[in-house]
Formats: sequence, C-alpha cells, structure tokens
Amino acid sequence: MRDDGGVRAGILVTGTEVLSGYVTDRNGPWISERLAELGVEVAHIMVVGDRPEDLAGALRYMRDQGVDLVVTSGGLGPTADDLTAEVVGRFAGREMVLDTEMEGKIAAIIERFARRLRFDPESVRESNRKQAMVPEGATPIDPAGTAPGLVVPAHGQVVIVLPGPPRELQEMWPRALAAPPAQELLARASPYRTLSIRMFGIPESELARSLREIAEDGVALERLEITTCLRGGELVADVRHREGAEDAAEALRSGLERRLGQFTYTESGESIEEVVFWLLGDRTIAVAESCTGGLLAGRLTLRPGSSKWFAGGLVAYSNDAKAEMLGVDPALIDSRGAVSPEVAEAMADGALERFGADVACAVTGIAGPEGGTEEKPVGYVCFCAKTAAGEKLARDPVIPGSRADVRDRSVVVALHLVRYLLEGREPPR
Amino acid sequence: MRDDGGVRAGILVTGTEVLSGYVTDRNGPWISERLAELGVEVAHIMVVGDRPEDLAGALRYMRDQGVDLVVTSGGLGPTADDLTAEVVGRFAGREMVLDTEMEGKIAAIIERFARRLRFDPESVRESNRKQAMVPEGATPIDPAGTAPGLVVPAHGQVVIVLPGPPRELQEMWPRALAAPPAQELLARASPYRTLSIRMFGIPESELARSLREIAEDGVALERLEITTCLRGGELVADVRHREGAEDAAEALRSGLERRLGQFTYTESGESIEEVVFWLLGDRTIAVAESCTGGLLAGRLTLRPGSSKWFAGGLVAYSNDAKAEMLGVDPALIDSRGAVSPEVAEAMADGALERFGADVACAVTGIAGPEGGTEEKPVGYVCFCAKTAAGEKLARDPVIPGSRADVRDRSVVVALHLVRYLLEGREPPR
Repeated sequence: MRDDGGVRAGILVTGTEVLSGYVTDRNGPWISERLAELGVEVAHIMVVGDRPEDLAGALRYMRDQGVDLVVTSGGLGPTADDLTAEVVGRFAGREMVLDTEMEGKIAAIIERFARRLRFDPESVRESNRKQAMVPEGATPIDPAGTAPGLVVPAHGQVVIVLPGPPRELQEMWPRALAAPPAQELLARASPYRTLSIRMFGIPESELARSLREIAEDGVALERLEITTCLRGGELVADVRHREGAEDAAEALRSGLERRLGQFTYTESGESIEEVVFWLLGDRTIAVAESCTGGLLAGRLTLRPGSSKWFAGGLVAYSNDAKAEMLGVDPALIDSRGAVSPEVAEAMADGALERFGADVACAVTGIAGPEGGTEEKPVGYVCFCAKTAAGEKLARDPVIPGSRADVRDRSVVVALHLVRYLLEGREPPR
Repeated sequence: MRDDGGVRAGILVTGTEVLSGYVTDRNGPWISERLAELGVEVAHIMVVGDRPEDLAGALRYMRDQGVDLVVTSGGLGPTADDLTAEVVGRFAGREMVLDTEMEGKIAAIIERFARRLRFDPESVRESNRKQAMVPEGATPIDPAGTAPGLVVPAHGQVVIVLPGPPRELQEMWPRALAAPPAQELLARASPYRTLSIRMFGIPESELARSLREIAEDGVALERLEITTCLRGGELVADVRHREGAEDAAEALRSGLERRLGQFTYTESGESIEEVVFWLLGDRTIAVAESCTGGLLAGRLTLRPGSSKWFAGGLVAYSNDAKAEMLGVDPALIDSRGAVSPEVAEAMADGALERFGADVACAVTGIAGPEGGTEEKPVGYVCFCAKTAAGEKLARDPVIPGSRADVRDRSVVVALHLVRYLLEGREPPR
C-alpha cells in the first residue's frame, strides 16, 4: 500500500508463446485499462514463460515492489506446462486441494464439449481434472471455457488468477472482482479523472514545446499524470488526475486548445472513425482501396452498428478491377498511372456512384517494399475524399515506414481527410 | 550466465502509454523473436511506466535473475518523461557526458526535419539536445529517427538501449548487435533449431493427449522445448532444441504426423495465406465479404507481391451492395436471408464473375453483438469457396466470441476452406 492510500497492481502474463513473440499479448493492456478505470495504479506488466521458477520470481518481485494486487493470465490449461495455480498456491503458502464442486462443473462442460466435437470424453476429462485443484482458502471463479479462475489472498496481497484466452478472461473478470478479497481491496481505490486529447498532423516535439510553455505560464502540471505518445499516426495526450486537480487539468486543456486546437479532433478520446460517423449523421460512406487492401473498410466496420453508415467497399488491386468495378477509365490509368491523384479521384467517383453513397474515400498508393520509382517512391499514396455533391479534398503524401506502416497510416490519413471534408475545411498547412 | 553456457536476456519496454494499454507493444515480441533466432533465451518481457524508480527496479530485478543481456525500448524521446539513458547510465555506474559528434548528427537530422515541416528549428533543436547525453564508455548507436541508441556495459551485463518507435528500433537493431560488447556476448550463444507445426480444426486437449502418448512411447520430450498454443483460431506446436536433440525432434514430428496429420497444414511455420498462395500457383483469388468487413482482403494483401494472386475484394455490407455489385438476386436475399448458405454461394459466384477470378471465397454472417435470432444466432457465419470450374466447399458454423473474435476467426476459417478446396478434399469431420 502507498502513502496516498491508493492501490497499486502488477500484471503477470504467462506463456512461452507470448514470451517468444509468437502471440501478441492482449490481456496485459486490457487488464491495465480495466484497473485504471477502477483507480488502481498499474506498476508493471510482466511476461514470463512457463518455467515455475520464473513465475515464482516474478511474484516475489511484485511483492518486494509493494504491489497490493497481482493479476495473472494464462497457465491454467490442461497441458503439463500449465502451472500457474500451483505456483500461486505455493507463493501464498496454501495447500492445493481438490474442489469437488468445481470438478463437477468442469466435467459437465467438458462432456458437452467432447460430445459436440466427437472426441472421447474420458480422455478429455482426464486431461482436465487437474484444473479443479485449488489453493486452500482461495475463491474459485467459474470458468468461461473449461479453466476456472482463482482469487487468492497471499500474505496481505491479493492474487487474481485468470486463464489466457482473452474471451474467457474478459468474461470472468467481473466475477473475479466480485470475490470478497478483491472487493475489500478495490474499496480503497479512488477512480481517476481522465482527459484524452487526440491530434493529427503535428510532430511530438510541438506538443512537448506547448507543454513546456504551459508549465512556464504557471500551470501546476506536476499535479497531473500526462502521457504523450504517437499512436497509429495520431498524437495522443492522456491526462489523468485524482480528485482536487480539476483546475490544473482545465488550465492544461485550454492551454493546449489555444496552441494546438487546429490539430485537435477530440478531447474525450473518441477514435477517428467514431468522429467520422458522428459527422456523417444520416449520410453513408463508401470506400475504394488499393494499397490499404481492405483495412480502411475493416476499420469502418469495426464497431457494432456501423452498417448504418457504411455503404460498402471495393478492394481494387488490379487495373482491371479499377476499370470494371469502379468504372475508372483505362486510358486514365495508362496516362497517369494507377497511383495518381487523377485515378484516386476517379476511384472515389466510382465508389460514390456504384455504392450509391453520399461520401466516398479512395486510396491508391505504393505500399512497398517493391514497386517504387524515383518519381513515385515507396510510400507515395494518393487520397481523394469526395461528396456526392462534388465537394472534394485530395492529398498525395509520401508516408514513411514499412509496408505494414504505410498501410496502417494510410488508413488514418484517409479517415482524417474525410473528417476535414465533412467539417467543410482544409487540413492545416 | 547459465550452466549450459547459453545467453539469457530480459526485455524492458518503457512507456506509460504501453503500460496503460493505450498502445499495443510491438517491440517486446519483435525483439524476442530476433533474440531466439540468435540462440538467446528470453527470460521475461517487462513493461514499466516512465517513473525512474520503476525502471531502475526492473533493471535490478533482471540482474538478480542472472540475465546476461537487457534490451530496453522507449524513453529516448525529447520530452521530460524520457529518462531511459540516464537511468541505465546510473545503473551501470557511469557518468552522463555530452557526445558532441552525436550532437552534430542529431542537429543535422532535426534541421532537415524542421525545415520540411516548417517548424522553428531552434525550438525543436532545444527539445532534442538532451538526446546527445550518453553514459561514459557506452557505444552510441546512430539514430534512425532523431533518438540515438546505446550499448552499455554494466558490471558484466550488457544493456542495449533503443527507442520506442518500432520502425526506428528495427532499423537500429543490426547496428546495436554490431557493437563490440554485444558481439562478445552473442558469440557465446548457439542458435536453436525449430519446428513449427500448425493445425486447424482440433482442440488443444487433443494435442495434449498426443504429446502424452508420444512421451509414453519413450520419446525424450524433455530434451525439447515444446510450446503449444491457440493462435488466431489455429493450434500451434512450436518445438525448439539445441544441437544434438534432432532424433527426439524427428520422433515427435513423426508421432504428431501419424496422430494428427489430417489436421496439420504446415510443419515449417508458414501462415495460412502463404499456403493458399502456394496452392493457387498461377491462379487468382477474389473475395466477397460481409461480416468480416474487408479483413479477409486485408489478410490476403498483407504480404508484398500479393497482387500476383489477389484479383480484388468487395465489402458488401448492405443488401443493395450485394445485389448491385455482386449480382446477388434480391429475391434470394428476401427468401433465404442475407446470412444464408445460398447467399454466400451467390456472393462467391458474383466475385468469380465480376473480378474474373479463378477462385473466390464469400463470407456472410452475424458478427454481433446485435442482430442475432434464435435460428441464426450471433456468430452464425456462412462461408462458400468456389472455383470458376464449379468446385465448391461450403460451411456455416456458429463461431463463439466477441464481435472482434467472430470477425478474426471468420477470416481464418475462410482461408482454410479455400485451402481444402484447392487441395481437392473435404475438411476432416
């Protein structure tokens, strides 16, 4: 526990597949966001393999760092390298005992599962029996898949043990928080207030300079927790504070608005596609993509209910597809090149017409690593955003980075271009 | 250093934006994969915020765990919360000194950058000057962006310090490895041999049972490092071993082939889209997507050179788009529903015809969380893969999970259905 009475947590992600980089960990960031919402300060996220000594070492380290809560993910499966429950039990000084009620629950789940998949139920049950062994005095958490979780009091700390599959972990999270030892701990945490300012089109050093100036103006920035970062081509300033620092947060917000307001598109953390949907109102949008290969459509259909706005998308990699499916004049492609502002506009026109949309955005570019020329290097991407009424914005920057970077950033540039079009203004500079 | 003379490493990712879950860490997994290729065993990946005491604590922990090499990412930027170089210098017991040669290099980069973006060069240079301060005796690494890296000998350990942006880190990685202290350490590492077996269509418990049986047959699995995991809807068994354990690895491989060969699609780690491209030969593929919203096209255009195979994709969210752009009979949509095997096949036919492709795959489903009915619940997805010659495979499973899960897994199911079609066989069961 810390001086201010707040609660600090460590997150421990286990699994050689995550440690080795084969699988991207989604649990650490997810748990971290949930804890922040509860006002718990996360001190570290640690990924270790399936070796029990590494797991035990990490638990000891977190205890030494004075962490109140540890949340683990992974290592609850049926295979021999799944050891988390046992290691946590030993760390908490608790014997492992068979939870017969849990054994019954798991057996019922497994039987249903095995019948559906037509595997031998006995062999499956055997390989899962160890999942019903729990440290004495721990609160077992009902499984979402086949692996139960645990809330384990450990010498004044609380350890929440959850399985690795994100879907199971997320479903079991509220159940774990409801367990009495977790409740008791969380009662001590006071939620943060947050402000999430998102900007597009300026380098991080400009934001750094503005923050320095605001501090020089006498705003008590030390009372705020400010994180600035580049994320997905956007510049994000996240500001967290405890109750009582509202004046400093407001002074920071208005200072940034005065200096960088023209680059700011939200102060409350909405994503750019949410802003675009909001600006669309009851209009629809269609897209025509070449180098982004479907990622722009994928982003516009990420959220539930996006079919209200999204009329459709065409991924036209080949010149034939651009001509056939979007009605782009082959002579235009021949004379200007498939990657050209002219073809981008013709693709936008085609998307407007073919999908009967109110707004369209087209992207054609050279994602690389091959295909660049001196005149049109790798990263050269042409964008055109257009309304059915004929309003238009077009840009053709050279975007730095790998093939994946160029594709991902192009999606962000396209969305912001649509935003400016819908706001009825030119991007700054 | 460990008994076997191998080299162990820890990876330390800094940045409140990563710790808080706002940004997904790409550096930890990337560095981990590179180190494994060099034969270095990674003991842990740790994410900490920008507090110097957390950073220093993590370095001490890694030293206590007997790690030979620490690689850090992040915290080299121009803002005040970028403290890694200083903390590492103190940890190594080395004074910070101004590297005037590096100062000159950074100044030149900044000036170019500032001119291009039309920001005041002096203010930018000021905010970057601290980046030229390096621990005495460390080897500075030329920047890819504006932040130089460091290779710092630290009481028998080596600490490699790299910036946070993945593109910069990856570009600077070979330079860091070439520094004499890193070279000396890596000379002691002997690379692993690896085998990456990927399966589709069976639960992890079946693999666990096969591994138990193979061990009971007397194969010395303890000489291998076996990681099994579910990744993106596929089951992966990665097998690593040092020189001398080839016989055990081969016995494991053939044992798994005998038992689970019909579910196995590669033993050398190719992704499913690579296998599909290989099977396509000189044929082309087109896709028609509803619930996956462009993600299938995005996956098929991930790799450079995919335009050789990818004819195009249509994202037809609305019924109008399905009818207009793919020629699906509106009466069929009315009678069977937009999510039905019949409409999936009509979408595949439309994609074959409109894109002039040799093979097509269509996906239409209910990604949720809204829109499910008793007959067609959330997660119900219809797939149809078809060749221009009329060969066809269709499936309509209910896929569990969140909206994102249903979308992601549908992409994998679609790719495997195309694989089975091209292999000329039915999926098992």
